[in-house]
Amino acid sequence: MTTEKDGQPPLLVQPQDYTFGWTEEDALPLDCGKKLYGVNLRYETIGTLSPAGDNAVLILHALSGDAHVAGRHAPDDRKPGWWDEMVGPGKAIDTNRYFVVCSNVIGGCAGSTGPRSIDPATGKLYNLSFPVITIADMVRAQKRLMEHLGIRKFLAAVGGSMGGMQALEWARLYPDCVQSVIPIATTSRLSPQSIAFDWVGSQAIRHDPAWNNGEYTENPEHGLATARMLAHITYLSDESMNRKFGRELQESDSYSFSFERDFAVESYLEHQGRRFVERFDANSYLYITRATDYFDLANGYDDLAEAFAGTKADFLVVSFSSDWLFPTEQSERIVRALLKNRLNCSFCEIESGYGHDAFLLEVERLGALIRDFLDNQQRKFQ
Amino acid sequence: MTTEKDGQPPLLVQPQDYTFGWTEEDALPLDCGKKLYGVNLRYETIGTLSPAGDNAVLILHALSGDAHVAGRHAPDDRKPGWWDEMVGPGKAIDTNRYFVVCSNVIGGCAGSTGPRSIDPATGKLYNLSFPVITIADMVRAQKRLMEHLGIRKFLAAVGGSMGGMQALEWARLYPDCVQSVIPIATTSRLSPQSIAFDWVGSQAIRHDPAWNNGEYTENPEHGLATARMLAHITYLSDESMNRKFGRELQESDSYSFSFERDFAVESYLEHQGRRFVERFDANSYLYITRATDYFDLANGYDDLAEAFAGTKADFLVVSFSSDWLFPTEQSERIVRALLKNRLNCSFCEIESGYGHDAFLLEVERLGALIRDFLDNQQRKFQ
Repeated sequence: MTTEKDGQPPLLVQPQDYTFGWTEEDALPLDCGKKLYGVNLRYETIGTLSPAGDNAVLILHALSGDAHVAGRHAPDDRKPGWWDEMVGPGKAIDTNRYFVVCSNVIGGCAGSTGPRSIDPATGKLYNLSFPVITIADMVRAQKRLMEHLGIRKFLAAVGGSMGGMQALEWARLYPDCVQSVIPIATTSRLSPQSIAFDWVGSQAIRHDPAWNNGEYTENPEHGLATARMLAHITYLSDESMNRKFGRELQESDSYSFSFERDFAVESYLEHQGRRFVERFDANSYLYITRATDYFDLANGYDDLAEAFAGTKADFLVVSFSSDWLFPTEQSERIVRALLKNRLNCSFCEIESGYGHDAFLLEVERLGALIRDFLDNQQRKFQ
Repeated sequence: MTTEKDGQPPLLVQPQDYTFGWTEEDALPLDCGKKLYGVNLRYETIGTLSPAGDNAVLILHALSGDAHVAGRHAPDDRKPGWWDEMVGPGKAIDTNRYFVVCSNVIGGCAGSTGPRSIDPATGKLYNLSFPVITIADMVRAQKRLMEHLGIRKFLAAVGGSMGGMQALEWARLYPDCVQSVIPIATTSRLSPQSIAFDWVGSQAIRHDPAWNNGEYTENPEHGLATARMLAHITYLSDESMNRKFGRELQESDSYSFSFERDFAVESYLEHQGRRFVERFDANSYLYITRATDYFDLANGYDDLAEAFAGTKADFLVVSFSSDWLFPTEQSERIVRALLKNRLNCSFCEIESGYGHDAFLLEVERLGALIRDFLDNQQRKFQ
């Protein structure tokens, strides 16, 4: 049985499901104009909602994350949830104190309704008939879960990368439902460079014959692994790759002069690609990356400041110095728009060599910020 | 008939071929330990070698370049050579004054011996039986061409990107054969990040069923286009993509909510991928990118300075501020190694938003530097 370092028994959590939208009125309206029926959200909670309802923290996962944010499903689980270093009893997001909620996004492949779910209208897998969803659509589904859980207002909506995009959408769409928002290593809109990387990844999947126009039985491994390897490069920094791999060879002191993997970085990417194919669905990958492509908080407004016009939340915006996927200037853009609206905003660029992945790795420094910010917010909770 | 802007008749050039290496002694020895027989180099020259032999400028092309550096093959050619703005009568590399030589690299697909050439030993296409070549091997072949052309010493070896790598190899391998070297937007070794991008591109090609383990009759278009689109992103900068495309949509004012190309940047990449497949061979792409992966001038030495220990050339090193493929610090590394050897070295970082592609686009500022540097070098020619 796995035990925590400090001798505490492992934190056990149970995946739960909430399904809604079986009727025309209850179905989830989407940005594309369609509606989603019979929507399931897979979610997990840790801790207890206080009688005052002032301690609910919504955690929003990134592209390849899921509802399993922390703890273990079974005592002998080899690995805990994806942000276990940040979330748990006594940790920065202290589950002795806060009621943590995390749900798998719609479009996902870890329990929530997505392209590999059964379309209730046909009894068959959606696959490409699943509607193209947006970050706002993900958030609209989470709002239903919030109501289901009897939460009036979140103390904070916290997320890194695509999780940060959802956090920003919470501030825009449901200003009365978030006391504070913590967007980490994120952006208010995807840049053309990021759209371009997504495009190349999606082409790799779509041109894998095993993808079969989305109607596969086995994950199209080569295409999906290629897309993942590419994305993975954008999560690291030049500096971290130099430090981690340099030009080290995998198995020999001298070049093999072949096309097989020879450099350590090639083996690493191969490994990352293979592991990803085991746990993530190709159609889900297409839908979720497309949702990020379409993410532009200012879309439909004159500018980003106008998008935040109704927003009431306090903000803690965090970026990382070596993140070139969502560089600090993109966080600055968010901060400037918040300040134009006279919103309270703390902004910190954490010096880190880890690139975009820093939001998962710089737990100590990021955690210290979040811990104090949440503490302040709970005092101010209205 | 196409005429130059100034009313001059178009500069006409003729591709030429030089074949060598039919015997054991004359065959080209390669870094991998094999030898290449019956090697053809496709090349072009412009201008006239001076009686003193002090005016030969070797131009070294980048990954997707070829021997056709400037001018036109026929008066009605729609487009001139790839560096026509830099090279020609009265231009920065003035062909009224200099004798310009440019050859297609071995491994290439524009006339020189490469994986799609006939293996004289079997009478069949090499394909994957072509040996894995290196940047140094490309340069060894160019040395044979130099001898064939009766050139004792180049006034300068000039190249951007992979052309710069070849220029550096000239300085290391043949110190008596280059009066000066102009490495532009290049590096002394490929970083793990660049190796990683190449790896993803090569996987896209190799997993295209049309590639057929290298034994194709038609270029594997999807894999090669995917590899090219990815590489193309690394040639641009975040800034230039923002300026050129932003989040502009291709055909409509509103999102199509589909997986088809919707953003202008997606259409642009598609176009670049398609065009590349028409003009470049997939196996060549694998071989040439692999040559760059293996490029590390310091390999086999204690450090980069030691690699330049025998070097005698003067250098003009140029980088571009927004080039994140081969950023300025990689040029600085070259400059420091040159200075340790007390070599003459001019170094300029040109402020440009064009990213890596700046070496093809910032003709005016780059040209002014090269023009003056060559002029100085010719005065010093020994």
